[in-house]
Amino acid sequence: MTGDLEGVVATSTRLSHVDGEAGRLTIAGYAVEDLAPHARFEEVAYLLLYGRLPEPSELVRFTQDLAARRALPPAGWEVLRAAAAAQALPMDALRMVAALASLGRQEDPAEDALTAIASFPTSVGAYWRLRSRARALETYLNTVCDHGLNASTFAARVIISTRSDVISAITGAVGALKGPLHGGAPAPALDMVFEIGTPERAETVIGAKLDRGERLMGFGHRIYRVRDPRADVLAQAAQRFYASGGDQRLYHLAQQVEATALRLLRERKPERRLDTNVEFYTALLLHGLGFPAALFTPTFAVGRVVGWSAHCLEQLRDGRLIRPQSVYVGPTDLHYDRGAGPTRPQ
Amino acid sequence: MTGDLEGVVATSTRLSHVDGEAGRLTIAGYAVEDLAPHARFEEVAYLLLYGRLPEPSELVRFTQDLAARRALPPAGWEVLRAAAAAQALPMDALRMVAALASLGRQEDPAEDALTAIASFPTSVGAYWRLRSRARALETYLNTVCDHGLNASTFAARVIISTRSDVISAITGAVGALKGPLHGGAPAPALDMVFEIGTPERAETVIGAKLDRGERLMGFGHRIYRVRDPRADVLAQAAQRFYASGGDQRLYHLAQQVEATALRLLRERKPERRLDTNVEFYTALLLHGLGFPAALFTPTFAVGRVVGWSAHCLEQLRDGRLIRPQSVYVGPTDLHYDRGAGPTRPQ
Repeated sequence: MTGDLEGVVATSTRLSHVDGEAGRLTIAGYAVEDLAPHARFEEVAYLLLYGRLPEPSELVRFTQDLAARRALPPAGWEVLRAAAAAQALPMDALRMVAALASLGRQEDPAEDALTAIASFPTSVGAYWRLRSRARALETYLNTVCDHGLNASTFAARVIISTRSDVISAITGAVGALKGPLHGGAPAPALDMVFEIGTPERAETVIGAKLDRGERLMGFGHRIYRVRDPRADVLAQAAQRFYASGGDQRLYHLAQQVEATALRLLRERKPERRLDTNVEFYTALLLHGLGFPAALFTPTFAVGRVVGWSAHCLEQLRDGRLIRPQSVYVGPTDLHYDRGAGPTRPQ
Repeated sequence: MTGDLEGVVATSTRLSHVDGEAGRLTIAGYAVEDLAPHARFEEVAYLLLYGRLPEPSELVRFTQDLAARRALPPAGWEVLRAAAAAQALPMDALRMVAALASLGRQEDPAEDALTAIASFPTSVGAYWRLRSRARALETYLNTVCDHGLNASTFAARVIISTRSDVISAITGAVGALKGPLHGGAPAPALDMVFEIGTPERAETVIGAKLDRGERLMGFGHRIYRVRDPRADVLAQAAQRFYASGGDQRLYHLAQQVEATALRLLRERKPERRLDTNVEFYTALLLHGLGFPAALFTPTFAVGRVVGWSAHCLEQLRDGRLIRPQSVYVGPTDLHYDRGAGPTRPQ
């Protein structure tokens, strides 16, 4: 096999375990449905970085340490202003500021990890003047904090495996997360809900999509063969959030869309076991919290930077240089003709 | 096997072939010793990006296109000034500016590749007010333009495999190249030459290093089992450069150090087949050209960005998501005790 390393084990880890057959996600020992809805995001960050939950006094110090690191360097503000003036994508703006996070600081893996974790909410928030924060948001950040060796986490481990620095690795991971194949792009799942508009249109619109052979965004996952456990956690968070003051009509529409999609998928593709994935309820939840769709993936990064950081520290402790091979399939034995070479433009 | 993917084929490529047993490096069909000393760096960039050498008129247009892209965006200058004020490492400064290369431009893989290739010399040069440019430098850049699936190239391919953008992938590659395990850090090879100082001390100093079990920097390679073909190309470039006006004394000292190191390595480690690697003559050549040691790796990046760019375009054409697995070795079945949880700091 050449091409994508699918099924090849590239590392061992103590950070998270994605069990696709059983539909279970374990985060440093805790089931995601046990941890995410209840823990503070700072507790989860501490858990991933140090391998256990903090004692109360440790959590106070850790939270204060993060708070002291939230400010961006002045050059970071210059970059954000330039990015906004150029209407850069929020993920591009985040990459630009992430690359600066070490400015003026001595390089140190644990320090760099804390600085990155602390500065991401500032970067994303400053770019959109975002202020909302709630239990629902904390549950979301906890839910996406780590997820095995996804492509962005793998990119971070490849980079840090050269004994480079944590900020360099995290900047690379931001770049990988941006790609639509990464799986961190929930906006299209919500687009379908809006397109359907009213519950009674669900069957017609979804049926027509399946007739045309279109993929239903928000359903199916590369690894999970059953229901993504994160979808349940976020579905419950969304239920609580919308019950306490959100747009109830939208919530019930989304439920109707999900039920209809699952029924039609099972009727038409019984062999595929396609279930609701994390993107469906992510989109519903973040939309309800007032996030524009362009901010969904940067907000994912605010949670996932904890996992990237912890993977970097784990790789520095345990890992060797990650360096697979390529197979050369191009020509050989060409000869550079220096006499008849191209003329030299001045 | 878990841990580093050594020997695992992760991709096929038409860009370069590293034959470690035969000591041959093929760049898109041409042997490195045929191409690097004679071709213009822009020709090699064209070759890697488009699969063949340019016609004269194509080379003129390509060179003009690159020249038109050399300017940094104003925010890039702000970042360079802030990096210099904070005394950031040159590789950190390059990562910060690389992350900005898409500012104000529409995202497009081929355009992004040209912009990155064109802007790297400006970024590195501006950071150190560097102006030297010569046949020797062009030979160096050609020699290091691509080298199979090294860690930085692999990082770039992992990032772009999510269908992210070329600038994101190249920014990640810059981060990976920074690491000392990458192999792009030639400065220590020169340090040994300076430490020895005069030819008659070579045997004593090298012998003492080997007695202490120290690794000789500039000798041995992860893949090449015989002499690194790039070392020969750069040795000849260094010979020509130093003969035409460099510090002849230093050149002869380096030759003496190399000969002594090879003789002692063969006497003491006959089973290891350790030969001179590319770093030894890179350091000698770049030092002769007036580059400070801190600039060696950023200058390596000025050449290697061509390979990164070409690998990104190849991956976009042919590749799938690169996503190996991890093995979870941490605890399971821990339970988050929400009642006795940590107190909540405000």
